[in-house]
Amino acid sequence: MTNQQRIQRKLNFGQIGGGRDSFIGAVHRRAAISDGLTEFVAGALSSNPEKAKASGEDLLLAPERNYSSWQEMLATESDLPDGKRIDYVSIVTPNHVHFEPTLAFIEAGFNVVLDKPMVHTSQQAQALVTAVEKHDVIFGLTHNYTGYPLVKEARHWVQSGRLGKLQRVVVEYPQAWLLTKLEEQGLKQAEWRTDPNRSGIVGAIGDIGTHCENLVSYITSLELEAMCADLSTFVPGRLLDDDASILLRFKGGAKGILWVSQIATGSENGLNIRIYGTEGALSWKQEEPNYLNFYPVGGPMQVYSRGNDYLCEAAQRATHLPSGHPEAFFESFGNIYLNVGDTIRAKLAGREPTALELDFPTVYDGARGVKFMEKVVESAKSDQKWTLFD
Amino acid sequence: MTNQQRIQRKLNFGQIGGGRDSFIGAVHRRAAISDGLTEFVAGALSSNPEKAKASGEDLLLAPERNYSSWQEMLATESDLPDGKRIDYVSIVTPNHVHFEPTLAFIEAGFNVVLDKPMVHTSQQAQALVTAVEKHDVIFGLTHNYTGYPLVKEARHWVQSGRLGKLQRVVVEYPQAWLLTKLEEQGLKQAEWRTDPNRSGIVGAIGDIGTHCENLVSYITSLELEAMCADLSTFVPGRLLDDDASILLRFKGGAKGILWVSQIATGSENGLNIRIYGTEGALSWKQEEPNYLNFYPVGGPMQVYSRGNDYLCEAAQRATHLPSGHPEAFFESFGNIYLNVGDTIRAKLAGREPTALELDFPTVYDGARGVKFMEKVVESAKSDQKWTLFD
Amino acid sequence: MTNQQRIQRKLNFGQIGGGRDSFIGAVHRRAAISDGLTEFVAGALSSNPEKAKASGEDLLLAPERNYSSWQEMLATESDLPDGKRIDYVSIVTPNHVHFEPTLAFIEAGFNVVLDKPMVHTSQQAQALVTAVEKHDVIFGLTHNYTGYPLVKEARHWVQSGRLGKLQRVVVEYPQAWLLTKLEEQGLKQAEWRTDPNRSGIVGAIGDIGTHCENLVSYITSLELEAMCADLSTFVPGRLLDDDASILLRFKGGAKGILWVSQIATGSENGLNIRIYGTEGALSWKQEEPNYLNFYPVGGPMQVYSRGNDYLCEAAQRATHLPSGHPEAFFESFGNIYLNVGDTIRAKLAGREPTALELDFPTVYDGARGVKFMEKVVESAKSDQKWTLFD
Amino acid sequence: MTNQQRIQRKLNFGQIGGGRDSFIGAVHRRAAISDGLTEFVAGALSSNPEKAKASGEDLLLAPERNYSSWQEMLATESDLPDGKRIDYVSIVTPNHVHFEPTLAFIEAGFNVVLDKPMVHTSQQAQALVTAVEKHDVIFGLTHNYTGYPLVKEARHWVQSGRLGKLQRVVVEYPQAWLLTKLEEQGLKQAEWRTDPNRSGIVGAIGDIGTHCENLVSYITSLELEAMCADLSTFVPGRLLDDDASILLRFKGGAKGILWVSQIATGSENGLNIRIYGTEGALSWKQEEPNYLNFYPVGGPMQVYSRGNDYLCEAAQRATHLPSGHPEAFFESFGNIYLNVGDTIRAKLAGREPTALELDFPTVYDGARGVKFMEKVVESAKSDQKWTLFD
Repeated sequence: MTNQQRIQRKLNFGQIGGGRDSFIGAVHRRAAISDGLTEFVAGALSSNPEKAKASGEDLLLAPERNYSSWQEMLATESDLPDGKRIDYVSIVTPNHVHFEPTLAFIEAGFNVVLDKPMVHTSQQAQALVTAVEKHDVIFGLTHNYTGYPLVKEARHWVQSGRLGKLQRVVVEYPQAWLLTKLEEQGLKQAEWRTDPNRSGIVGAIGDIGTHCENLVSYITSLELEAMCADLSTFVPGRLLDDDASILLRFKGGAKGILWVSQIATGSENGLNIRIYGTEGALSWKQEEPNYLNFYPVGGPMQVYSRGNDYLCEAAQRATHLPSGHPEAFFESFGNIYLNVGDTIRAKLAGREPTALELDFPTVYDGARGVKFMEKVVESAKSDQKWTLFD
Repeated sequence: MTNQQRIQRKLNFGQIGGGRDSFIGAVHRRAAISDGLTEFVAGALSSNPEKAKASGEDLLLAPERNYSSWQEMLATESDLPDGKRIDYVSIVTPNHVHFEPTLAFIEAGFNVVLDKPMVHTSQQAQALVTAVEKHDVIFGLTHNYTGYPLVKEARHWVQSGRLGKLQRVVVEYPQAWLLTKLEEQGLKQAEWRTDPNRSGIVGAIGDIGTHCENLVSYITSLELEAMCADLSTFVPGRLLDDDASILLRFKGGAKGILWVSQIATGSENGLNIRIYGTEGALSWKQEEPNYLNFYPVGGPMQVYSRGNDYLCEAAQRATHLPSGHPEAFFESFGNIYLNVGDTIRAKLAGREPTALELDFPTVYDGARGVKFMEKVVESAKSDQKWTLFD
Repeated sequence: MTNQQRIQRKLNFGQIGGGRDSFIGAVHRRAAISDGLTEFVAGALSSNPEKAKASGEDLLLAPERNYSSWQEMLATESDLPDGKRIDYVSIVTPNHVHFEPTLAFIEAGFNVVLDKPMVHTSQQAQALVTAVEKHDVIFGLTHNYTGYPLVKEARHWVQSGRLGKLQRVVVEYPQAWLLTKLEEQGLKQAEWRTDPNRSGIVGAIGDIGTHCENLVSYITSLELEAMCADLSTFVPGRLLDDDASILLRFKGGAKGILWVSQIATGSENGLNIRIYGTEGALSWKQEEPNYLNFYPVGGPMQVYSRGNDYLCEAAQRATHLPSGHPEAFFESFGNIYLNVGDTIRAKLAGREPTALELDFPTVYDGARGVKFMEKVVESAKSDQKWTLFD
Repeated sequence: MTNQQRIQRKLNFGQIGGGRDSFIGAVHRRAAISDGLTEFVAGALSSNPEKAKASGEDLLLAPERNYSSWQEMLATESDLPDGKRIDYVSIVTPNHVHFEPTLAFIEAGFNVVLDKPMVHTSQQAQALVTAVEKHDVIFGLTHNYTGYPLVKEARHWVQSGRLGKLQRVVVEYPQAWLLTKLEEQGLKQAEWRTDPNRSGIVGAIGDIGTHCENLVSYITSLELEAMCADLSTFVPGRLLDDDASILLRFKGGAKGILWVSQIATGSENGLNIRIYGTEGALSWKQEEPNYLNFYPVGGPMQVYSRGNDYLCEAAQRATHLPSGHPEAFFESFGNIYLNVGDTIRAKLAGREPTALELDFPTVYDGARGVKFMEKVVESAKSDQKWTLFD
């Protein structure tokens, strides 16, 4: 179903982070290999060398490529010949271990897939932008929700004018998993996310708020003009935000609301977006990702369903099963990897990647996300209603 | 099913406004008579005397009680003997014709049911509060959404501690009917609602925002501490707001978002509320009013359904059909009238109304709603982030 | 919103049955008066004279028209002059008290609204058909589900060819309220429905199965050719069916499934229908009655919503509130009464009722429903797969 | 999250069928490799040798294991040493090419995963049963819907008595993709499924009806006693059934309905099941597979959601992402392969597989499914209402 340009071997990739106890590392690996043409061959799976080794053994990595540290991996892989050396590295460490290995691998000429949020500061982000441009590597950021076919369809509607002029955006991301102080109960996922040293200046805003920002940007192409943020920490003693409500103003007059919470009792992973234009509106929910609602002015609501011929080319390329055979979270991740992979294959084959192949979040998206985090904090601290984005 | 205390005659009521072209007048009448024990006997159904008369003829009012003006109605009805005279007046005029007749009827000792928002200014509101207290009349305001049984159940959950400490409230009221400039196309409903002389200082905020404020207050009993409002007019040339996004802070630490829109394409009458507490959460949608979702910490989501024995007394009293036989908007209105009516019957019978009978929006709710409108405007005009409510 | 032809007085009606403990009697009364132009003036509200009187007092009937028996009511009302005499009688007794009073009132020239199922036997049904034709009275049967606007829209779609040739019909009516032997616990509703002397030869099939048959017939106009029924009594000792599964074959080749249950745990009043044609399909659920789904071949599913201009004339006439302000069960009943009432008004005014006014279930529908009950029983007893309908 | 017993190498598998144009072959491969510990190493991907080779090249199979025919694959792989030889073969050919290769591989001692329906006749089925028993191989059948975690939870509820005594089962599988005669328009999927020579004696009943039978059996453990089938071919000239309605009777008194259609306009892959017991009911829909509804007697409906601690062990083992991060069709398939794979690993490690590992459809399930197909045809041809299952 995908328009994959073959090369005559599998792609090889390695991973930094993602060992035992990691949730997202396994997701990345499963996503990466899901096309059947990609192999996981190397890893530095933990910052703890013993755990790194043990994790690699679990995953049956060849001992010589089961590294104790990313530095070792970088050194050794750099010396391997083309075709044997990893084609890209997937970096899935906690936030504070994003910048250094990413920059190092880019500077060594490796392609990189990095988990979000990209880095802690705009300064770091700019360094990555510069490095990617200088070393001409392929860089993908796993804002995986843009990998869903119906999200691509939503973007297509906006771009093709189907909604008319956009007026209002509402994006929400309620979760409940940090309702209690899990960071004191030994849950690694909670520990680093609520620790300013590892998570950065924000908690929920970095973890899920950046997904919202990215989703709005991807679908609407609207640019933020100003925001007014109310950042909250509901769990006593927690060091970072676990909830936020933000008013948005976009260039051109559209307005919006973005709210996220990790204490929204009963929520699971409730990312959803509603976009209202002068000609129509749309709504999409991550938990029912195979459907996209369209609300045309004057007509009945329509439910677009994945796997149908009436969807746009980007949606169809991101589709791997017929309609009614649901696809979900792994496939959204897989579609990011698919496009990054095909872009790498294009490069290896000496041809220009297509626009469809290049449809994955970039280092520029990552930098904008970092700026978003910084602006939210700036606004939250301000007594002024509006904090300008630029 | 209701615990109605009988008196040995039907209640009689009259109506001001609600003639030909009115939507809400017919709703009030149908709601009022729905208990089978109430009769519509008098009207001054339009500010245009001819239209008033014609409207009364449509409705088969007795000619002598089909009045040309509310002033005439007031004068004549005041002279009628007990039992013959209307037991209450239902006032359903555009906002600018709320204050004067309401005050006059209260001062003449009539019970009143008034459509929302109560009046234009807090000054007027205070005058009504004073008059109601002084003349000891029964006064109900038709924030009808609090008449839904599942809304009563939601209130019961909060009051009984089922949700724990409340932390986050999200209330939304999207509509789309003012997406274009209907006020220039002869639609009476749109004309007065967008006219500052008739609607007051707000448009959407008065028409539907006050319902949100009332619903939050009714269910949660939370008190507003501060708000931060972004008021919008999307339709060019319109004179009042047609959209608003508001951050809320409640006393005690809960936070919230309230947004309303009358240009939210594809929406119909999408009032909905989500309330997140430390022990559980709830959600309710006006368009599917027979269901209330409960999200307990650690357990599966539960869907409470109207008409079941497991619901609270107030919900059961507001229920007129077995489960699965849906009740809807008319019945929500009817429940306001039912409780006002039974409170009047109690008074006529010389007994104290019960707490269940007194469960309808009061003049104090109305005054708080007016203050809410004023504070939203104040906040919208301010460069400061937070405008205090008190 | 309705195209009601006025007469210069309210319609008057009386009721047989519907006293204390009755659920459906109150529904009929509330439905009947909901147009604001109809008055409940007479009753013989129970077969128990004392209970009849007490029930009439509850409802504030004038003592002289609060009858001890329907025979008394018939005699007295017959002597009243035009305009004073009831314009129609609403008969809401248990099934075994349908035939006799209905026939008597028809033969006395009264218009009748009768609850379903019409009578016990086809012989009785034929007698009513003959009487209605002979005495030229207006007769309506409260298969109220055909009063829902979206059901009317569904019928319109079939009639206008929107679904193409119909191929498959699935109609279901699960309830759970007879899951235990309530008939032995003093619940009157359960007692007579499970008693062959009062309910007739069927239980669930009469109570809810006939609604299914009527709904299919109303929407599709398909005629039954043959059926294959499996009738069950799951509750030990119960005397009539509480569950049934039936294969249907229609003339012209369409096929279907009809199943009903009163022991389908967790169900409330789950009537729903799905109709599949060569050009499109539809689905509708009684518990969410304001929406009708359309599934066009090759396009996205569409959700038609009550109160919108895109609906057919019959749907709009049956609509009393704007879109998003839900209407429900009472209104479906009210729409049957509205059309019966307007047909009576037409007759009183000496004009032909319109097709829209005549849109209510007739004595012929009732007779077909009785035949359906008989054929289900015949099929259930047969070892042959197919029992012909004619 | 899975309790996978490691062996110190990846599992190897080969595939028969599944080349270019195949939908299901790719699903099997993606499912098989999704655990990251399984490798696709050999194939005979089409009965057309050229297409087989080309397909293997697409998938980067090593040339020496990219076979022209399954016979060649069998011969060559049989000669490979342990650890190099495929650990199992995945057979995904059209139905008429199930029996011969499956039997041959079993007799050669290979483990097999076979697509459903197992074979054409009970005679063939018995031969496979005998062979599996004799050669002691591991055999899995991809009734993948039993791989969904919430289906496992449903089974757990029944087995633990949560629903009480089962009384009614309704299982439906509507699709629409054969609404027109695609078999004459070059669609390979449609061609063989509607061709008696390749599909066998049934069309829709084999393709999707057997999934229904299997799902009912898996969840409820009910045994069929008798059935009454109405088999239809709606598309003129089609040679096999494209629609069926079947009444079911189970041993012990439960009753049910099973219907499938491939001409149910607007349907996608609408498999769903409702099970009603004396203590509670459940419903599950394949298109929203992450949720399972529970309807307890006397309480509100509950929505169980994948990824929560309150689910049973089998459901948790089949879960790979936290709640709210939806899993779907690929994962259901993957869970079948996971359990087959872990059972093979157990065998390789010389230990008994656990009950959780053995939780996949067996050759006995396959044989019962074949009998189901035969009995449906027998019933459809009979004039008698009931055809006994045994």
